[in-house]
Amino acid sequence: MIETPYLLFLGDAPDPLAAKVAQGIRDWRPENCVGQFRLDGCKADLGLPDMDLAAAKAAGAKTLVIGVANRGGKISQTWKKVLVEALEEGFDLASGLHNLLRDEPDLKAVAEATGRALHDVRVPEVDYPIADGKKRTGKRVLAVGTDCSVGKMYTTLALDKAMRDRGMKSTFRATGQTGILITGDGVPLDAVVADFMAGSIEWLTPDNDPDHWDVIEGQGSLFHVSFSGVTLALIHGGQPDALILCHEPTRTHMRGLPDYGLPSLEEVRDLSMSLAKVANPGCQVVGVSINTQHMGEAEAVRYCEEVEARLGLPTVDPFRHGADRLAEALAAL
Amino acid sequence: MIETPYLLFLGDAPDPLAAKVAQGIRDWRPENCVGQFRLDGCKADLGLPDMDLAAAKAAGAKTLVIGVANRGGKISQTWKKVLVEALEEGFDLASGLHNLLRDEPDLKAVAEATGRALHDVRVPEVDYPIADGKKRTGKRVLAVGTDCSVGKMYTTLALDKAMRDRGMKSTFRATGQTGILITGDGVPLDAVVADFMAGSIEWLTPDNDPDHWDVIEGQGSLFHVSFSGVTLALIHGGQPDALILCHEPTRTHMRGLPDYGLPSLEEVRDLSMSLAKVANPGCQVVGVSINTQHMGEAEAVRYCEEVEARLGLPTVDPFRHGADRLAEALAAL
Repeated sequence: MIETPYLLFLGDAPDPLAAKVAQGIRDWRPENCVGQFRLDGCKADLGLPDMDLAAAKAAGAKTLVIGVANRGGKISQTWKKVLVEALEEGFDLASGLHNLLRDEPDLKAVAEATGRALHDVRVPEVDYPIADGKKRTGKRVLAVGTDCSVGKMYTTLALDKAMRDRGMKSTFRATGQTGILITGDGVPLDAVVADFMAGSIEWLTPDNDPDHWDVIEGQGSLFHVSFSGVTLALIHGGQPDALILCHEPTRTHMRGLPDYGLPSLEEVRDLSMSLAKVANPGCQVVGVSINTQHMGEAEAVRYCEEVEARLGLPTVDPFRHGADRLAEALAAL
Repeated sequence: MIETPYLLFLGDAPDPLAAKVAQGIRDWRPENCVGQFRLDGCKADLGLPDMDLAAAKAAGAKTLVIGVANRGGKISQTWKKVLVEALEEGFDLASGLHNLLRDEPDLKAVAEATGRALHDVRVPEVDYPIADGKKRTGKRVLAVGTDCSVGKMYTTLALDKAMRDRGMKSTFRATGQTGILITGDGVPLDAVVADFMAGSIEWLTPDNDPDHWDVIEGQGSLFHVSFSGVTLALIHGGQPDALILCHEPTRTHMRGLPDYGLPSLEEVRDLSMSLAKVANPGCQVVGVSINTQHMGEAEAVRYCEEVEARLGLPTVDPFRHGADRLAEALAAL
C-alpha cells in the first residue's frame, strides 16, 4: 500500500506521452495529487501546481511517484539527486520502471538510513495464498479482451467512476503496475508466481458488502498465447458475477504475435463464459467496451451500434461516450 | 540439468511411500540409478544395491538425489552429515523438498568450497523468454485432466516409454519437481513467474525432427480454479498436436476444493480443444487415460470400455493395461 497523496515526478520527460503514468494518476485520482515536480527541459505538463520538495511536503505529500518512463526503463543519474533528496525530506518513493529502485545502491542506502519505503510496483510485496475457490460475499466485474492493450484498464477505471457517481459502492482493483500507482494498491499479477496467481486475485477482492462491486482490471486475453494463463487466473480467482468484453476494432493481429488473428467478440464471450461458470455459475456478460481511438466520430458510433445489435449488449467507447450505460447494466443485475 | 547417474538417498524413510520420488526414478529411469543409500531404520527399499558414498563414486554416480520426503519437507540434521560428506566426495546434490538446499548455510558453504552444485528443482534455474507463439517443428502431446493429481505424470511417462519401445522418437518433458528429478531436466512450472509460463514451455519443447514427439507432463486442470492458469499456459505454450484426457473416476470433488464437483470427460475435451486450437488449429484428442487404482479389475475394465464407447477414443489405465494403445493412436496421426 503506497501512502497518498503524491507529488508526481515528471523528470525530464521528452514529450507528454512519456508521462502517461502520471497523467493516469492525474486523470483518475486527482485527489491523490498535490502537485508535479519537473526538471529543466521537461516537455510534459499535467496542469498541476509545480512544486519543489519543501512545498509538496508542506502541502501534505507523502510519496514521490516516478510518473515518467525514460528510454530503457532506467533510473537516470539526472533524477538521482531529486530522489535522494526526497528520501531525506521524508518522502517514500514509488516506481513502475523495469529497473528497480531497490537495486540502486544509493537509493537503498538512503532509504534504510531514513526509514523510508521504496515501492517497486512491478514486484509483489505480499505472500499470496493458493486460491481456495470459496464463494465470497459482494459482487465482482472483470474486463476481458480480444487482445492485450485494448483498453481494459481504462474501461474499468471509467466504470468504477461511473458507478461511484451513481452512488453505487465500487472499488477499482488494480492488477497491473499503472493501475497500482494510480490507486496506491493492487496486485502486479504478471510478476506473481504461477501457483499463487488465482490466490492473489482472491486476496485482492475479499468478502464485501452484498451491494459492493469490485471492478477488476483485466490482463492479457484468453486468445493471447503468451499471457492467457494470467487471464484465466483472473477469471477463476476473481469469480466474477459480470464480464465486460473489450475490443479494439482496427487491430490486424494479436499484439506481438503477427501470425495470430484476433478472435471475434462472440468467441471471447463464449469461451470466457465457459470458463467463468466453473467459478461462478451465475456469471453474465453485461456489456461491451470498444476502443475507437483510431476511428472517426461517425464510424465509432456506427461500429458500437452494429456490435450492440449483433450481441444484444450495451456497447460504448467509455472514452468517447462515458461508461454510464455499463454502470447501468451492472446496477440492473 | 542434473548430472546422471544418481545415487538415491532414502535417508530414514519411515515407510516405502516416503521414498516415492526415488521409486519413480527407479521405475522410469533405472539406467540413471547406480544404487541406494539408506540410514539406520530406513523402511524403504528400491531393490537397488546399497552403497556408501565411496562405492557409488566408484560406480560412476555424479549426483546424490534426495528421493525421500520427511515430515514438513525439512532437511533433517540426521541427513546433514551424509549430504556434507557427499559434497566433499565430489557429488552434486538434488532435491525437490520445500526447504531448499541453498538455504542451509552449511550445505551452501561446503558446495561453494568444493565447487559442487545444489539443485533445488522447485526453483527455476533459467531466465525463460516470453512466449512468441511461433509454430515449431516436431510434434507434441500433452496430458490434460479433469482434476489435479489424477495420473498425468504417470500417463506421460508410460506413453513416452511405450513410444520408445515401438521405435518412435519421443522425449518426456517434465513440468513438475518429481518429473524433473526422474529425468534430470524440465521446468518447475508452478514456480515460474506468470508472464513467463507459456514461454517456459516453448523453451522446454523446441524445434525438433518432424517425426519426434515431445510428451509433455500436464499440471492442474482447466476446471481447478487454483491452478487453471498454469494448465492454460501448458496448452498455449506447448501448442500440442494431440491431447490425452486423464481422469480418476472415484473422486467426489476437485482436489482441495470441497465445493467443486468434477467436470465430465466431455467437458474437458471440449474446453481443452477450444483453447488448444488457438495455438494449433490441427490439435486432436487422441485417447483417454483412466486412473483405476481404487477399482477392482472387472470394474476397471468395464469403466474403460464404457468411456471408450462413449467418447469413441482408445481408453486405458496405463498402469494396469500399458500405454500401447495410446502410443498407437499417436503413431496413426
